[in-house]
Amino acid sequence: MTRPPPPARPSLKVVEINLDTGRENVVIISRRSKALRPEIFRGFSRVELRRNSKMLLATLLITDDDALVAPDAIGLSEPAFRRFAEPAGSLVTVTPAASPDSLDAVRGKIHGRTLSAAEIGAIIDDLTHYRYSDMEIAAFLISSAGFMTSDELLALVGAMARAGTQLRWNDPIVVDKHCIGGIPGNRTSMVMVPIVAAHGLTIPKTSSRAITSPAGTADTMEVLARVDVGVDEMKEVVAACRGCMVWGGHVNLSPADDILISVERPLGLDTREQMVASIMSKKLAAGSTHLLIDLPVGPASKLTNAMEAMRLRKLFEFVGDHFGISVEVITTDGRQPIGHGIGPVLEAHDVMAVLANEAAAPADLREKSLRLAAHLLEYDPQLRGGSGYARARELLDSGAALKQMQKIMDAQGPSTCRSDLGTSTFDVVASTDGTISGIDCLQLNRLARTAGAPIDKGAGIRLFKKIGDRVEQGEPLYRVYAFDTPESGLAAAAAKANSGYAIQDRQHVTCEVTR
Amino acid sequence: MTRPPPPARPSLKVVEINLDTGRENVVIISRRSKALRPEIFRGFSRVELRRNSKMLLATLLITDDDALVAPDAIGLSEPAFRRFAEPAGSLVTVTPAASPDSLDAVRGKIHGRTLSAAEIGAIIDDLTHYRYSDMEIAAFLISSAGFMTSDELLALVGAMARAGTQLRWNDPIVVDKHCIGGIPGNRTSMVMVPIVAAHGLTIPKTSSRAITSPAGTADTMEVLARVDVGVDEMKEVVAACRGCMVWGGHVNLSPADDILISVERPLGLDTREQMVASIMSKKLAAGSTHLLIDLPVGPASKLTNAMEAMRLRKLFEFVGDHFGISVEVITTDGRQPIGHGIGPVLEAHDVMAVLANEAAAPADLREKSLRLAAHLLEYDPQLRGGSGYARARELLDSGAALKQMQKIMDAQGPSTCRSDLGTSTFDVVASTDGTISGIDCLQLNRLARTAGAPIDKGAGIRLFKKIGDRVEQGEPLYRVYAFDTPESGLAAAAAKANSGYAIQDRQHVTCEVTR
Repeated sequence: MTRPPPPARPSLKVVEINLDTGRENVVIISRRSKALRPEIFRGFSRVELRRNSKMLLATLLITDDDALVAPDAIGLSEPAFRRFAEPAGSLVTVTPAASPDSLDAVRGKIHGRTLSAAEIGAIIDDLTHYRYSDMEIAAFLISSAGFMTSDELLALVGAMARAGTQLRWNDPIVVDKHCIGGIPGNRTSMVMVPIVAAHGLTIPKTSSRAITSPAGTADTMEVLARVDVGVDEMKEVVAACRGCMVWGGHVNLSPADDILISVERPLGLDTREQMVASIMSKKLAAGSTHLLIDLPVGPASKLTNAMEAMRLRKLFEFVGDHFGISVEVITTDGRQPIGHGIGPVLEAHDVMAVLANEAAAPADLREKSLRLAAHLLEYDPQLRGGSGYARARELLDSGAALKQMQKIMDAQGPSTCRSDLGTSTFDVVASTDGTISGIDCLQLNRLARTAGAPIDKGAGIRLFKKIGDRVEQGEPLYRVYAFDTPESGLAAAAAKANSGYAIQDRQHVTCEVTR
Repeated sequence: MTRPPPPARPSLKVVEINLDTGRENVVIISRRSKALRPEIFRGFSRVELRRNSKMLLATLLITDDDALVAPDAIGLSEPAFRRFAEPAGSLVTVTPAASPDSLDAVRGKIHGRTLSAAEIGAIIDDLTHYRYSDMEIAAFLISSAGFMTSDELLALVGAMARAGTQLRWNDPIVVDKHCIGGIPGNRTSMVMVPIVAAHGLTIPKTSSRAITSPAGTADTMEVLARVDVGVDEMKEVVAACRGCMVWGGHVNLSPADDILISVERPLGLDTREQMVASIMSKKLAAGSTHLLIDLPVGPASKLTNAMEAMRLRKLFEFVGDHFGISVEVITTDGRQPIGHGIGPVLEAHDVMAVLANEAAAPADLREKSLRLAAHLLEYDPQLRGGSGYARARELLDSGAALKQMQKIMDAQGPSTCRSDLGTSTFDVVASTDGTISGIDCLQLNRLARTAGAPIDKGAGIRLFKKIGDRVEQGEPLYRVYAFDTPESGLAAAAAKANSGYAIQDRQHVTCEVTR
């Protein structure tokens, strides 16, 4: 053994390492570092960086490469460098980090204890300030996935809503709509927001981008206008147009939700309580007073039967009542895609066709949007009960909604995306005569993503047939659009999707269609 | 938007990145990579590398720095490079990775389902092959921490034991001893192994290094002999000497245990079931037939009362019965350190003093070691029941145990460590007259680590007083040893430890001693 180094801990010089480590703060030190004895830190330990009153918790990696990090330096990954916000060359002290204090509460929860509102608040505060490692976030999520009391749920929603931007509007009625997702082409917000805003209600809509689907509302709206908008600009758009459709990413509503989702998703965690906390914390932070929730029920939706939908409805209403948000929950048909198109450009076409009252516009998207708009319009005390639907139709048919959409698009600014359709196409055809008896939304989502959506805005699927339609053998069911993909590649992808359509012949025997 | 790249996925060239990422496989690609669209991979996503039939699951980081990883390359962290075992420059394909299949079972467990032996086997297999990310390991641990059936526990122990090296000995009786830890200076194995081996029983002992304590048995043995020994060499030592005392790190018994512990520890998880699975899987893999378990009960031990110890005893016996290991569990006094020394060199002095029957040898270490050895010796059917203690004392007093220790040390090879004591010392003295009524093991552990143990073998604490001893004001309680640390630094550290001693005066009023 060589002579041990003195235990005094000199400072290390901050250098930035060009490494995107996402939500996790990562730092790198040399195995010959002067400040630590790295041999006592196993890989992926946690350390605490301090400079004056600033503190950062980070995961530690070790290197032998002086060119990467010299022995007198500490490398901060790009997100850690940004969050620590001290210039390169600053001197910091580094010590082994204890877990954040709030992790004691998580340990209690693991062993069956109920958490107080203060404990949940401390957990969310630490989460939001990136003090939890991935495994600590997982520990919190899993400890809560098994069981959560209603008081814990309320405390969680409140803490999450308070942790980021909190929008407040000078308006007694601020309406919003949320769909729990899963149904391709379901772009009702983009029809309904212009209708509701044209009527005069305030509807400041933030949307997400697709994570596992071929398009989120923000991806599709981006074909028509800029969506990458901050809080102040969003307020200006709403002041001018009563409504907006922007990406939520820059508005920072309930940032803890984004962090929790980024761990829930890879772990495949999906509980009612976590879904309700996610949605309600964002709506509470957005300043909504009246909220309509769309629960599609169908084999590809998060809800597969009416009983589950009822349980979820009760939970949304319970949380809404507590926070003074009027929540209305409706179940809708989630058996098949809405509209003709799947993918940003194709969906944007559907939306504009409905708003422009084109003859070829998809009737299902129009009807569902009118139905949802009707619910929202009836929050207006000036409107006679039951007349919401007629008013919505009037605003759509008269062109007022289309005019409002143009106004919103102008206020948000022009799109910078390509809006052309994929040039490489492939048709999937029926292998037998019969009636369409089912459409597998998950298969079509996967196929549209394989074709390039949502990154390639013009990639996706145009549906020619829906459930109940008659088809003859060889008749096209849908067309796949992509860029730079040979027809053979699309054919292979479509074959892998096994067409996604079920056709029932006259003898009522179901058979899968493939090509 | 720029023209999207073609969806075909060319191969990437493997480069090694000098980055120690511990148990986690980490790979780095360029944001301009040709093979992936990194913008769809958020930081810390999981990817799958393939080359021919080889596959590696890894966590993905992204860089903009071509000097770190070029766009046509993929950087593998040092452990990932070692585990993938393909030369630099090899071409691999990279795709987004699904979770390992066994994670479905973990999700089931989170939602309260009981797991089958096959499911637990698949989880342990994936864990052992580094297919789980940190958060996935945490998910498994926490889902099991709440509740585990006895069948699940048995399946877990079996799967963990089968996952690594499985030692088998040509001997009907293979004895072992395990202490659940927490008590400084508790080096009974190093006295007991030579006694038992001198008698002629097979006792192939593997030990751990300290993780949070100032010394593990492997750290202390390393002062006297080489402990860094592989499986084949260990077998040779046992063949020659009947016993050994080597570090378990190179023997690879129950590697899943090491992986689970590396996540349990930072999360502070500590359940009976996980403790039993950890210990019993290692002993089963080690080929033990007869196992003595030492449960110290005291304020600094993992067990603070007899009821907890009883529950744990039943669980050890249950698992032992199932796997055909004869398990004996005894509770011992865990109120204070054993022996005079804390820290590798000081503890090694105690052990050798006991083996050499020196007058100044610590009586408590001698007595406890004899008591444990007595239990193990009585597993010998040749020995008359109840005569174990007398036989152990005979082997110790006659010098046979010391001779056996020398033989084992010679067989393992000479130590390469420094064995000198720390040159910088500081005495902590009693601030009042009275009787020692308590010693805080956790405080002393922390102080010994601050002084430099176990990295500095000669750092630590020598105790002058134990519980029940009379002291006068100003009389030394213990001495701290370190290297290169000024006396003032040791004084500050000792003050921070608040001495760790409680002294009761004649009026039976407890007061803390500080200096």
